[in-house]
Amino acid sequence: MTIKVHEKLLLTGAAGGLGRALRERLKANCSVLRLSDVQPFGEAAAAEEVVLADLADAAAVDGMVKGVDAIVHLGGISVEGPFGPILQANIIGMYNLYEAARKHGVKRLVFASSNHVTGFYRQDQTLTADHPPRPDSFYGLSKAFGEDLSRFYFDRYGIETACVRIGSSFPEPKDRRMLATWLSFNDLHRLITACLTTPVLGHSIIFGMSDNAVTWWDNSRAHHVGYAPQDSSDVFREAVYARTPQPDLTDPAVQFQGGAFVKAGPFDSR
Amino acid sequence: MTIKVHEKLLLTGAAGGLGRALRERLKANCSVLRLSDVQPFGEAAAAEEVVLADLADAAAVDGMVKGVDAIVHLGGISVEGPFGPILQANIIGMYNLYEAARKHGVKRLVFASSNHVTGFYRQDQTLTADHPPRPDSFYGLSKAFGEDLSRFYFDRYGIETACVRIGSSFPEPKDRRMLATWLSFNDLHRLITACLTTPVLGHSIIFGMSDNAVTWWDNSRAHHVGYAPQDSSDVFREAVYARTPQPDLTDPAVQFQGGAFVKAGPFDSR
Amino acid sequence: MTIKVHEKLLLTGAAGGLGRALRERLKANCSVLRLSDVQPFGEAAAAEEVVLADLADAAAVDGMVKGVDAIVHLGGISVEGPFGPILQANIIGMYNLYEAARKHGVKRLVFASSNHVTGFYRQDQTLTADHPPRPDSFYGLSKAFGEDLSRFYFDRYGIETACVRIGSSFPEPKDRRMLATWLSFNDLHRLITACLTTPVLGHSIIFGMSDNAVTWWDNSRAHHVGYAPQDSSDVFREAVYARTPQPDLTDPAVQFQGGAFVKAGPFDSR
Amino acid sequence: MTIKVHEKLLLTGAAGGLGRALRERLKANCSVLRLSDVQPFGEAAAAEEVVLADLADAAAVDGMVKGVDAIVHLGGISVEGPFGPILQANIIGMYNLYEAARKHGVKRLVFASSNHVTGFYRQDQTLTADHPPRPDSFYGLSKAFGEDLSRFYFDRYGIETACVRIGSSFPEPKDRRMLATWLSFNDLHRLITACLTTPVLGHSIIFGMSDNAVTWWDNSRAHHVGYAPQDSSDVFREAVYARTPQPDLTDPAVQFQGGAFVKAGPFDSR
Amino acid sequence: MTIKVHEKLLLTGAAGGLGRALRERLKANCSVLRLSDVQPFGEAAAAEEVVLADLADAAAVDGMVKGVDAIVHLGGISVEGPFGPILQANIIGMYNLYEAARKHGVKRLVFASSNHVTGFYRQDQTLTADHPPRPDSFYGLSKAFGEDLSRFYFDRYGIETACVRIGSSFPEPKDRRMLATWLSFNDLHRLITACLTTPVLGHSIIFGMSDNAVTWWDNSRAHHVGYAPQDSSDVFREAVYARTPQPDLTDPAVQFQGGAFVKAGPFDSR
Amino acid sequence: MTIKVHEKLLLTGAAGGLGRALRERLKANCSVLRLSDVQPFGEAAAAEEVVLADLADAAAVDGMVKGVDAIVHLGGISVEGPFGPILQANIIGMYNLYEAARKHGVKRLVFASSNHVTGFYRQDQTLTADHPPRPDSFYGLSKAFGEDLSRFYFDRYGIETACVRIGSSFPEPKDRRMLATWLSFNDLHRLITACLTTPVLGHSIIFGMSDNAVTWWDNSRAHHVGYAPQDSSDVFREAVYARTPQPDLTDPAVQFQGGAFVKAGPFDSR
Repeated sequence: MTIKVHEKLLLTGAAGGLGRALRERLKANCSVLRLSDVQPFGEAAAAEEVVLADLADAAAVDGMVKGVDAIVHLGGISVEGPFGPILQANIIGMYNLYEAARKHGVKRLVFASSNHVTGFYRQDQTLTADHPPRPDSFYGLSKAFGEDLSRFYFDRYGIETACVRIGSSFPEPKDRRMLATWLSFNDLHRLITACLTTPVLGHSIIFGMSDNAVTWWDNSRAHHVGYAPQDSSDVFREAVYARTPQPDLTDPAVQFQGGAFVKAGPFDSR
Repeated sequence: MTIKVHEKLLLTGAAGGLGRALRERLKANCSVLRLSDVQPFGEAAAAEEVVLADLADAAAVDGMVKGVDAIVHLGGISVEGPFGPILQANIIGMYNLYEAARKHGVKRLVFASSNHVTGFYRQDQTLTADHPPRPDSFYGLSKAFGEDLSRFYFDRYGIETACVRIGSSFPEPKDRRMLATWLSFNDLHRLITACLTTPVLGHSIIFGMSDNAVTWWDNSRAHHVGYAPQDSSDVFREAVYARTPQPDLTDPAVQFQGGAFVKAGPFDSR
Repeated sequence: MTIKVHEKLLLTGAAGGLGRALRERLKANCSVLRLSDVQPFGEAAAAEEVVLADLADAAAVDGMVKGVDAIVHLGGISVEGPFGPILQANIIGMYNLYEAARKHGVKRLVFASSNHVTGFYRQDQTLTADHPPRPDSFYGLSKAFGEDLSRFYFDRYGIETACVRIGSSFPEPKDRRMLATWLSFNDLHRLITACLTTPVLGHSIIFGMSDNAVTWWDNSRAHHVGYAPQDSSDVFREAVYARTPQPDLTDPAVQFQGGAFVKAGPFDSR
Repeated sequence: MTIKVHEKLLLTGAAGGLGRALRERLKANCSVLRLSDVQPFGEAAAAEEVVLADLADAAAVDGMVKGVDAIVHLGGISVEGPFGPILQANIIGMYNLYEAARKHGVKRLVFASSNHVTGFYRQDQTLTADHPPRPDSFYGLSKAFGEDLSRFYFDRYGIETACVRIGSSFPEPKDRRMLATWLSFNDLHRLITACLTTPVLGHSIIFGMSDNAVTWWDNSRAHHVGYAPQDSSDVFREAVYARTPQPDLTDPAVQFQGGAFVKAGPFDSR
Repeated sequence: MTIKVHEKLLLTGAAGGLGRALRERLKANCSVLRLSDVQPFGEAAAAEEVVLADLADAAAVDGMVKGVDAIVHLGGISVEGPFGPILQANIIGMYNLYEAARKHGVKRLVFASSNHVTGFYRQDQTLTADHPPRPDSFYGLSKAFGEDLSRFYFDRYGIETACVRIGSSFPEPKDRRMLATWLSFNDLHRLITACLTTPVLGHSIIFGMSDNAVTWWDNSRAHHVGYAPQDSSDVFREAVYARTPQPDLTDPAVQFQGGAFVKAGPFDSR
Repeated sequence: MTIKVHEKLLLTGAAGGLGRALRERLKANCSVLRLSDVQPFGEAAAAEEVVLADLADAAAVDGMVKGVDAIVHLGGISVEGPFGPILQANIIGMYNLYEAARKHGVKRLVFASSNHVTGFYRQDQTLTADHPPRPDSFYGLSKAFGEDLSRFYFDRYGIETACVRIGSSFPEPKDRRMLATWLSFNDLHRLITACLTTPVLGHSIIFGMSDNAVTWWDNSRAHHVGYAPQDSSDVFREAVYARTPQPDLTDPAVQFQGGAFVKAGPFDSR
């Protein structure tokens, strides 16, 4: 049962894959769900608002944030690519978002960080939130920046953030790596709900994964969030093995947690 | 199923809230249950003994301890207040109790310590038994003393003690803080039973909480105790949220694990 | 459901207690199961091969290993005794085995290490794989050697090994110590299956125990293996207590995790 | 060169061994040095005040503290013995002292704690301030209490304390154990001066030892105090070896850091 | 004696305070010293080159980097201020610099990071390089970004970087905080020389401070760099105390390591 | 000044490079120095004895050990090579040595272990004695075995051992790697003397290096040994750089601490 503690909740990146998965689920978390993305993605339904905004546009972001109680920030670029667009959406965009939150008194955010913040650790290592970042890409680097930025806004202004290092959130795991990283849509929603409702959140880093048998991450630093996953990649394991080849252990994409991201690029400069 | 390994078990603080909750439950742990408190609290039932004793009275404590195989020590003062009475009951009382245990050959005790030993940690931190004490009150300070005293009696004389840092043991959680700290009466009994029956206890510190989703404490240093909680505050969560306001994150009683204790006092000197 | 990722699997020590327990179970893990021991132990059944080999005999070990895809190595001596035979079977034998694996391109092994690698830690301590070895016997020492040798073959040649520190794998726990150390045959098989099938194993140390309430070991360094025990010693606990005496806490066999091994010997030199 | 940052400094335990050693040295740290002990110990010299006070007497302690800027607290009992007197001087006395400091606005104290707080660690272990207490005596236990009490007054009221776990402060080391634990009088004064003058002290635990080659303690948690010892037990080493026998490694007084304290007692109850 | 291992060395930020201090000193480290800044700052002397470049201008940075063997990067903004200029010089500038280094095969850089990466830790805490960032400003945040970016270029492309978290590098310490953070110009040069010449640098974080008695930082993770400071703030201590007031311990600028930076801002958006 | 605490000291490997370097120096540590090696190496001088013994020969080792008070064990093979001879000298030899020590009541040994026990860590990592072994060779593996064996004899029989992981002990450092690993002969002697004379040694692992600026090892776990190096590789640094090329950072012999050992082999089986 989802507990509703916020009147108006903002969901950014509402037109993306995870945004669409969360749109209905998050209605239980608020009275009004404000949806935002950079391009038009349809009309507001009942108890919804739609605000279009480019994250790199400070004024637009200010308008997007004004009047909400809490924010689930999925917006920005979520794959590896040239630095320029990532800079605009994920670095300047994060600055714009937190400045708007500060000005408008928003006190709690859930920030979609990524496992690619620590993608250059090996797949036979277990990480906690205390392991230093080892980003595997410009994308991962921008998420590390977002985590540090939100830490600053907590230490300086008391704004609470959960940095959710999302693994692989899809209807089902696509390959053997995702057996470890998979996060079901329902568990993603459970995790965001936990972050929104736990009495004291502080500034927390939490790995976003379902209750998979094979994992690389240890959430013991974030017990206070109260996340209890209920799904598991294990039910897909046999099928995944049947359709995928044995991994080549000399391939960096197999050795490191970031998978193919660790080999992406270099890209031409902006 | 409770395993009985002791013939005669002493329960101190038998007239208090937890004492009353445990009186019936502990009968499964022994052949004879000796009950003690400072004031008269009724007659002994079958398979019971009643011994009145002021913990600050060494001779009375000696008589209270003589002849028992193990002790569950809930006695003393369990709330914050002036130092004088806490000194008598919780500091001098602990000394009297362990001296009596040493003289009479009692080899295992369960000591009701408290989360207030570490009440000045933040609610967004996860603690293990290795975190140094940060008591939030004279009460918490007296419990830190008790933990150190029992460590001394273990290192010096081999007397085993489980220091159970009890969270909030009530019929149900009263507020949002207790969602993290709640310990059901049945889980309290399970925990005490585990401490009494595990083959080797040593000197152990264990946090007393049910299987709550939101927690601040990590019992991974005490796996050898074998405590497996079966209750959870989560079933009360919706009701608690409905009847309590959003916490004010600038209030020390919300920021710190000790709750209101961190603001109690100062008290006039004795 | 066991996933089969290997064509031909070698099980050494097939005639021993655990070997016999695993013989049928491991058929689900491969197309052909090669069985080996030092003495004749019967005929090969369907989908089986039998190869006799003394582990101290390099040529015999080479023949034993040739043609298999992965190895479950239970062979060698599994109890404390004089150093000479342990040297032959467990030290020279391990060298022979890994040299053969290197030459024949075997890329993954499961090595039956032992809790006696860390037998001189106390029973009130919780260990992770990072605790330095404290072997309690020549036997435990030989297993520590095997762990280090397999680490060398991983760092130098990329051969993956799971060092499974087996607790006490019997049909049921025999005494109070085994309540902590017990590993059911089915959980042993689950653990070996996890080691054989996890996408990336690396060089991992994992404690082999069922889901017992009382434990001394923390497998949080090996989440990537994906072992999920389903049995527990707890169902036997009452019976074990009923037929065994209270432990004497001044006995090193009770104080230390290795149990009676910590008192075995000295033995006459070879 | 000692920097003077306090006008009036209180030295308790002024008549004891360390008190007498510090009396002249501390004059450089203040304009007026108030000296206190429980029994008359002579007249005040120039720039001195003398106040007699029993630490267990709250009113006397209040008078002793009134008007000073900082406190060096050496007072109380400094050897093992029956619990009663230690309770009066070291437990009730500490409470009285900090209550007086709170009421009179004293903001910084140096508390003479002791290596006997951790006396039950082995002599082949290196400790930091984060190791949990393992007191070896009632005396060590009372010092652990004092450390926790001062932590409480820091967290609750912002009163800074340096808990100096003094090793063995004598003109020269008397035995082999003191090669590790020796603290020269001049280094003791340097350490107290560092605690009194460092810009931010917080609540710090620091081991009081000279720059000895053999040590058991690591002060890396207290770099902010700025203590730089200039003496060493090494110049006495040859002489100490010449006049003392080889240690018996089976003797607890040799195995444990607390030395003979670990074997003192039991004492009759008060 | 400085060992010269590079032919052509680039010093960015050559016109700033530290740049001017290093200009002569770095000539011992190379055959040709290329100097760069954003504005004209004079002529090249013998064995010097001067290249003007705006760090935010990728093409200019590319030209600045082309042909050098190693880089000492002091360029960019070194004080707190609005986010916009910091973004241009310290975030986009770092990206431009490392892209140029990658393209031109520069294999080692020394990056002037800052203690403001961890400015929100308390002044009574000792930090190692493993403590997670807690930036105290946009400036500190941009330096945390630079550290992560250089980590990425090491893991991905093998480019070695020393992130030197410079404390306070001035002719002498200006206030009590700088007693802890002071780094003499000669020690700064020693540190940079160590980073440039150590056989294997990897990706290292090292705190830039002289051999001060009071410190907040522990460089034990960077012994492989071989930095041995020879100066100390202690010779200035008495003078600093004489001309500065007692710190107010309730002031965040005193409580936290970042000093006044923790209170700077908020600034108007770009 | 060396303190003499043993009457008769045994030095094994006396004919090797380090043995010859220590022969004169160790005379200060004892009244009689027994020298041993496998092949004749000359006559005993005054206050010397010579005993020839093959370490793999239990009876010979027994005779070699009989009558001595302490042992400095440099004997065995000290370079990488085929497993067979290493097994004989370093594994069987260690067993023979400790059995003899046990039988003859020798209570303290200094065992020449090696940095090759941890040779597969990177040169940009700082290790303590708590890092798990990562041997780089059969030689390193045999030394890891020796460390574990001596741990067993300490836990089981109370025999103290210092495992000295010798870096590179030569008249001067030969290459850039040895700038980190160099141990002068005088510091080697100081270290052995510290191990022989410290009051309580326990079972200790200590890295054998001089006071070099560039180091990979942290001896903070072994402060109780009291080793204070007085030499440094730094005086040779300029000369080493002048005669050696820039290291190739893609070469495993440069990346890993073990240097060329990490690439030695494979060797034909015995």
